[in-house]
Amino acid sequence: MNAEEFARRQKEISIAEFFEKNKHILGYSNPAKSLITCVKEAVDNSLDACEDAGILPDVFVKITKTDKNFRIVIEDNGPGIVREQIPKVFGKLLYGSRFHSIRQSRGQQGIGVSGAVLYAQLTTGKPAVITSKTDPKDKAIKVELFIDTRKNEPEIISEERIEWFRPRGTRIELEIAGAYVKERKQSVLEYLTETAVVNPHAKITFIDPDGEIFEFNRISEDIPEIPKEIPPHPHGIELGKLMWMLKTTESPTLLSFLKTEFVRVGDKKASEVIRISGLRPETKPSSLSRDEISRLLDAFNQTDFLPPPTDCLSPIGEKYIMKSLINRFSVEWAFAVTRKPKVFSGNPFLVEVGIGYGGELKADERVKLLRFANKIPLLYSQGGCALTKAVESINWKNYGLTQSRNELPIGPAVILIHLASTNIPYTSESKEAVATIPEIYEEIRLGLQEVGRRLKEHISRKERFKKKKGKEELLNKLLPLLAKKVSEVLERDEIDVGRVVSRIMGNIHVEREIKEENGLLEVEVRVFNFTKAKREMRIYEICAGEVVSSDNAKVSPSGNHTSLLWQIQLPPGKGEVLRYSIRGRVINRRPFVEGVEKEILSGAEVMDLALE
Amino acid sequence: MNAEEFARRQKEISIAEFFEKNKHILGYSNPAKSLITCVKEAVDNSLDACEDAGILPDVFVKITKTDKNFRIVIEDNGPGIVREQIPKVFGKLLYGSRFHSIRQSRGQQGIGVSGAVLYAQLTTGKPAVITSKTDPKDKAIKVELFIDTRKNEPEIISEERIEWFRPRGTRIELEIAGAYVKERKQSVLEYLTETAVVNPHAKITFIDPDGEIFEFNRISEDIPEIPKEIPPHPHGIELGKLMWMLKTTESPTLLSFLKTEFVRVGDKKASEVIRISGLRPETKPSSLSRDEISRLLDAFNQTDFLPPPTDCLSPIGEKYIMKSLINRFSVEWAFAVTRKPKVFSGNPFLVEVGIGYGGELKADERVKLLRFANKIPLLYSQGGCALTKAVESINWKNYGLTQSRNELPIGPAVILIHLASTNIPYTSESKEAVATIPEIYEEIRLGLQEVGRRLKEHISRKERFKKKKGKEELLNKLLPLLAKKVSEVLERDEIDVGRVVSRIMGNIHVEREIKEENGLLEVEVRVFNFTKAKREMRIYEICAGEVVSSDNAKVSPSGNHTSLLWQIQLPPGKGEVLRYSIRGRVINRRPFVEGVEKEILSGAEVMDLALE
Repeated sequence: MNAEEFARRQKEISIAEFFEKNKHILGYSNPAKSLITCVKEAVDNSLDACEDAGILPDVFVKITKTDKNFRIVIEDNGPGIVREQIPKVFGKLLYGSRFHSIRQSRGQQGIGVSGAVLYAQLTTGKPAVITSKTDPKDKAIKVELFIDTRKNEPEIISEERIEWFRPRGTRIELEIAGAYVKERKQSVLEYLTETAVVNPHAKITFIDPDGEIFEFNRISEDIPEIPKEIPPHPHGIELGKLMWMLKTTESPTLLSFLKTEFVRVGDKKASEVIRISGLRPETKPSSLSRDEISRLLDAFNQTDFLPPPTDCLSPIGEKYIMKSLINRFSVEWAFAVTRKPKVFSGNPFLVEVGIGYGGELKADERVKLLRFANKIPLLYSQGGCALTKAVESINWKNYGLTQSRNELPIGPAVILIHLASTNIPYTSESKEAVATIPEIYEEIRLGLQEVGRRLKEHISRKERFKKKKGKEELLNKLLPLLAKKVSEVLERDEIDVGRVVSRIMGNIHVEREIKEENGLLEVEVRVFNFTKAKREMRIYEICAGEVVSSDNAKVSPSGNHTSLLWQIQLPPGKGEVLRYSIRGRVINRRPFVEGVEKEILSGAEVMDLALE
Repeated sequence: MNAEEFARRQKEISIAEFFEKNKHILGYSNPAKSLITCVKEAVDNSLDACEDAGILPDVFVKITKTDKNFRIVIEDNGPGIVREQIPKVFGKLLYGSRFHSIRQSRGQQGIGVSGAVLYAQLTTGKPAVITSKTDPKDKAIKVELFIDTRKNEPEIISEERIEWFRPRGTRIELEIAGAYVKERKQSVLEYLTETAVVNPHAKITFIDPDGEIFEFNRISEDIPEIPKEIPPHPHGIELGKLMWMLKTTESPTLLSFLKTEFVRVGDKKASEVIRISGLRPETKPSSLSRDEISRLLDAFNQTDFLPPPTDCLSPIGEKYIMKSLINRFSVEWAFAVTRKPKVFSGNPFLVEVGIGYGGELKADERVKLLRFANKIPLLYSQGGCALTKAVESINWKNYGLTQSRNELPIGPAVILIHLASTNIPYTSESKEAVATIPEIYEEIRLGLQEVGRRLKEHISRKERFKKKKGKEELLNKLLPLLAKKVSEVLERDEIDVGRVVSRIMGNIHVEREIKEENGLLEVEVRVFNFTKAKREMRIYEICAGEVVSSDNAKVSPSGNHTSLLWQIQLPPGKGEVLRYSIRGRVINRRPFVEGVEKEILSGAEVMDLALE
């Protein structure tokens, strides 16, 4: 072949043709994974649409086996999609609303769900069926469509108005070649379970091919704040991007350009940048030469800016991360940290890291790693993901786990990492793994070190308390025998040794005494601080019936019962007596105490409201 | 936000914008990797162009440090690119000649080198400079260009005709942000080294930023056969693709469609498919309904076809794989297998697996794994690659290596895997790892098992020979003493114990005796077969001077010396005497023998021409 022959063979390829040939890049590399990917793309879209519209999501997923294939239906109560947009949203790749907007969302590429449509038509030759309704007063619109892959344009097969019970929402129905796997780390059920964990405001209903129904109910009625769209941040922006912004801006001067087109750049910072760059504030942005723009970029990097605002990001939150680790893995201890936002290539991001320890987790296995990006669980490509590499890079021996160099540590622990960003740098369009961007990698490492230090404290404390416990148990065995002997000899009433043990052990000691007279219960709760420090705590009692007196307590009736709360401060060596009287009964076996570790609390139960 | 607001935000994204934002997907995720990726894309293109034009490639790579960045130049002696195509080839993504053609090539997506141009302009704002010449009689054309990312179209900055010393060829010059690393597994040098290994016909010259020159000379003057373009194979084609083919074909009947648009489908097979499908041969292809097409597809899968022809693929070859393992790692033993082509989703592919053992490789480290796809070394994402997963999935304990379950084995071995296909299913556009396609994965496993069995044989033989060696050494110590004693007692000449040891050990034994008279050397080479089997072998002698007589030998003069070759067959227990006489000298210390393992050869050197 010579150059002319080559030239004749050159042609343009449409993005749809490209992915038709390379469908594995979108996650369609084997039947089981393909089915998960289809569900994932549609559910991610539903959650995004609901969140942006301020609606508590109610997502319905159904998979049924057809003759040789699978039919999947995903339906939501979101805002719906207007008629004109349906064909392009589902029938054109690289089409969407989120690509240019700098704020956190699950979808960002405009490829996902149209990729699923492409996969369906390629494997079964069946069109996608979309039903959508945007106004409760209207009928729904139902469209059957293919993608014309040569043009990357939708091809509508049929279109009709139908009655639909939902006031608003979107439904997609696909028939695909696939395989359904149950009970595996990589499955539709696992994807939905993990999705529910980090989307506590979502209700998800799933009917599997056997007709089994799984319901994930929302555990929070708070709609997450809609992440705000922001302009780019001056740190990390690249020269080419900056050149293009300067060329296309509507700002008349460099000063106004800097102030309007970047976040965290006010009058002062803009002037500072201009001064450092040696340029003039009134220069027309489009007139800058390549060298001048390069100087401007250098000036950005020499200037301190506030980190980008957090409101373009939507973290899961430390509380929910700890809660989900405790609920799902029954760990004995959990800790989580939501780190401050940082920037890479102009994109704000933040890292959340949670760790759970003990409980039912096995001590001789690799730690479990849960990876999330913008609240999407990442089930595949664990090995190739920056989140995993960051975990492997940490020396976990420092934090009480065993580890071979550069591998996942071994121990009864689960690690959760969530990367939230206006632009998640996935290694491919299938959104399975995060690329190893130095800034992100470092930030995850810092988060891991932070939770690691807390893990080490926990493990050390546990060991310390284990020793203490041994001593306490010994005292609890010996002292009653001793006390009995002494009381026999002295012919006095037996003393309660509990308080003595607590004093020796340096505990917070709680006693409750109830006296009844004519159906009136007089309750005394005595709290002693035998530790060496001043202690603040909250004491709760839960009663049924009428509270007659309540001595400084905050009394809160709630349904069938009433709670009493005392907030007290005890200097070391001091005690306090809390009294109340009721007509009814005390419900809790022992008083609840908040603010004291269970290992130094005796005679009461620990209550940790932070995790309720 | 409601549905109308959403609708207003929806827009189309160009593929260039997409990759501008997601440049890490193309391999530009950190400075060091970005530099390697740029070099790789340009070199791959050069090698492809030369091969397609039937030219022995001569590729020149130079990296220089500029003020803050790197300038890279890649130049080849290929066919050049005609003026009209230059802007699109380098300035438009998803543009190329190889996407629709079913044959093996390095480039397949039409993204690679334009991605490098995009990365350059994004990080340094500098245009790509392309120089190309297609006709020795013309001047070269030099074009400076950017990519207009919003349109995914080239934007030409300047264009001129210049003198260029090359008769034909292409040169690309880019200025990029990057980092140059030396002496690391992931480096430009490593990429070029491995490229040279599997492209023995290519000459590559590399000048690094320190000015150090690395030359990889071609070790083969054979231009690899140009892989032939073929129609799709009926096995593995997907419904959607088949529908589109039927819709757009120019064949008037189903019968002619099957015969002309598929490989390995002749009259007989086409009729068989039509019979099984229950369709009629004269049906117009475009008139088939979805159900009928589905039946046609089923009929494909129920019919046996010959595997696709191999001439669309270009394997490295078992000989070159073994040779490169031996040269590069100085292993004591190597084996390689080129497996028969198979098909996935209609794409022919073949797998080559090589293994080297011992020598300088460390016994307590993980085996080295070299991955190649269409003769491109894969340096990144080892963990996420089907090639790696296949190695990890094998139980290497069966083959003499140690291994933790599902990990790379440990031992003094190197494994080379080459996947050749008309369509490599890379996990992403950066072409770092291969997706886990079941057919490919299985085929690699079979290849690994094949070399694994040979490895086991080698290790067992080695152990056996080790024992034998011990025995032989003992005999070699004892027998001379014994022989001396016996000859003293019997007052006879001492016997040569070598032949006795060989007889006891069951070796092939070679002796050479040289007598000189008046400057004429009379040489006798005596060969004895003490093994239990009939043996065929070739005996070589290398001499300088004039060969006077040569007793059945094939005499080949070559420069300053002459080689003599005897091909002999020896039944067990027999011997043969080879005689020659020369005026000059014998060069080789001991005779060379080909066809006998070194462990059972005594008195001569093993020569293995298969690996020369």
